[in-house]
Amino acid sequence: MIEEEDDIAARLHVEAPLAAAAEIELDSAQTHYLRSVLRLAPGGHVALFNGRDGEWTAEIESLGKHKAMLRPRHQTREQEPEIDLWLLFAPVKRARIDLIAEKATELGVSRLVPVLTRRTNIARVNIERLAAHAREAAEQTERLSVPVVMAPQRLDEALASFPAGRRLILCDETGTAPPIAELLAQAQGKEDSWAVLTGPEGGFTPDELDGLKKLPFVNRVGLGPRVLRADTAALAALAVFQALAGDWRRGRRR
Amino acid sequence: MIEEEDDIAARLHVEAPLAAAAEIELDSAQTHYLRSVLRLAPGGHVALFNGRDGEWTAEIESLGKHKAMLRPRHQTREQEPEIDLWLLFAPVKRARIDLIAEKATELGVSRLVPVLTRRTNIARVNIERLAAHAREAAEQTERLSVPVVMAPQRLDEALASFPAGRRLILCDETGTAPPIAELLAQAQGKEDSWAVLTGPEGGFTPDELDGLKKLPFVNRVGLGPRVLRADTAALAALAVFQALAGDWRRGRRR
Repeated sequence: MIEEEDDIAARLHVEAPLAAAAEIELDSAQTHYLRSVLRLAPGGHVALFNGRDGEWTAEIESLGKHKAMLRPRHQTREQEPEIDLWLLFAPVKRARIDLIAEKATELGVSRLVPVLTRRTNIARVNIERLAAHAREAAEQTERLSVPVVMAPQRLDEALASFPAGRRLILCDETGTAPPIAELLAQAQGKEDSWAVLTGPEGGFTPDELDGLKKLPFVNRVGLGPRVLRADTAALAALAVFQALAGDWRRGRRR
Repeated sequence: MIEEEDDIAARLHVEAPLAAAAEIELDSAQTHYLRSVLRLAPGGHVALFNGRDGEWTAEIESLGKHKAMLRPRHQTREQEPEIDLWLLFAPVKRARIDLIAEKATELGVSRLVPVLTRRTNIARVNIERLAAHAREAAEQTERLSVPVVMAPQRLDEALASFPAGRRLILCDETGTAPPIAELLAQAQGKEDSWAVLTGPEGGFTPDELDGLKKLPFVNRVGLGPRVLRADTAALAALAVFQALAGDWRRGRRR
């Protein structure tokens, strides 16, 4: 369901400030993409965003083999405040963790936090690859920002350093938690910051669940009668959050 | 988040009736899975379901190279009525259409209908592969049924033959439709049958949207301020439906 402006061939996230007088240098991967994949040339137009300065139409001034220079021409969208929603998730195997990064970005998550639980059997999390998936999803779905991907943390450490004032929605598949819609109906219109927490294949251990239940900022919720895979649970919980208590209550931005 | 019973090595969907006196013959793919992937032997136990007779624990009586014979021992779950929710979706490229079949199954869809729209650029839909993904998802997520996968239909044909009494939720990304939660808040507790319709990458054409809007059984909804990929839109809409108007209001079945 992606529609592009007629003359805009690509949409790229950059780090540099965007302004009418700026010169934006692309990295070699982005340069390769414009030159060899899209076969653009100087004079072509792309859209740029950096998470701070809205979206700009920029003209390609030069396009070498490893380096491109772009000049922002006019701002097409203003930066807007975004929802402050974290996803804490137990890492799962490769295809499914990539999917979590991609879909969580589309669903408006501001921060992705891999948390290592007792039953997590993933030895290493490639956060650079997750960040690349998040960036690509933001570029392709007209988001004006890219979520921050954090280094993996142990669950107990993530909970010990959990910020005051933020509430944590624990997706609990033991079948004893109240439905997610019940919690979120009460949350509508409140200004809290939120996080969603999902477990690994195999779920949280009883000890982990006991510990989580005792924390005052944790709300347990259930996600229906079927057992969901870890990635499905994360994406489903985020969609329901956005629909009921998040930014789906306003319309499209453009 | 899948937990298995201690002595149950696998969960398989079969077509045959399940009863204490039955003999269940597995096909060669399932036989291969039990013998060569799980390395089971006669005397081992698996769970069986067929969408009609609940779930049974069955003992492996014989396990040859191409054929296995199982005997149901006792019923572990009764068949329960399931929600009547269809997903009509424009087919997308391979990895994403497989994902739609898998996740829609986890999210409780009863029927998957590929619909060909103006901007659908997928020439052929392999419904056998989609059905295999749906079956595997049902097996792994403790569903007691497998959704029916229909042959692809043209959108206009699917609409012309749309059954009376069923309502169609059109996921409309033009930014002018009311939020999905608004529609579903009104739908709670009603006994209607429902379907969700999602478009291809590139969306529906203005003509298609005009035609859809005129149909009395169609409700347009929006899915928030970001542009979602086609697969994300389908899964997000299904999750929100189940949370607000579907079966997520009851707990886990077991």
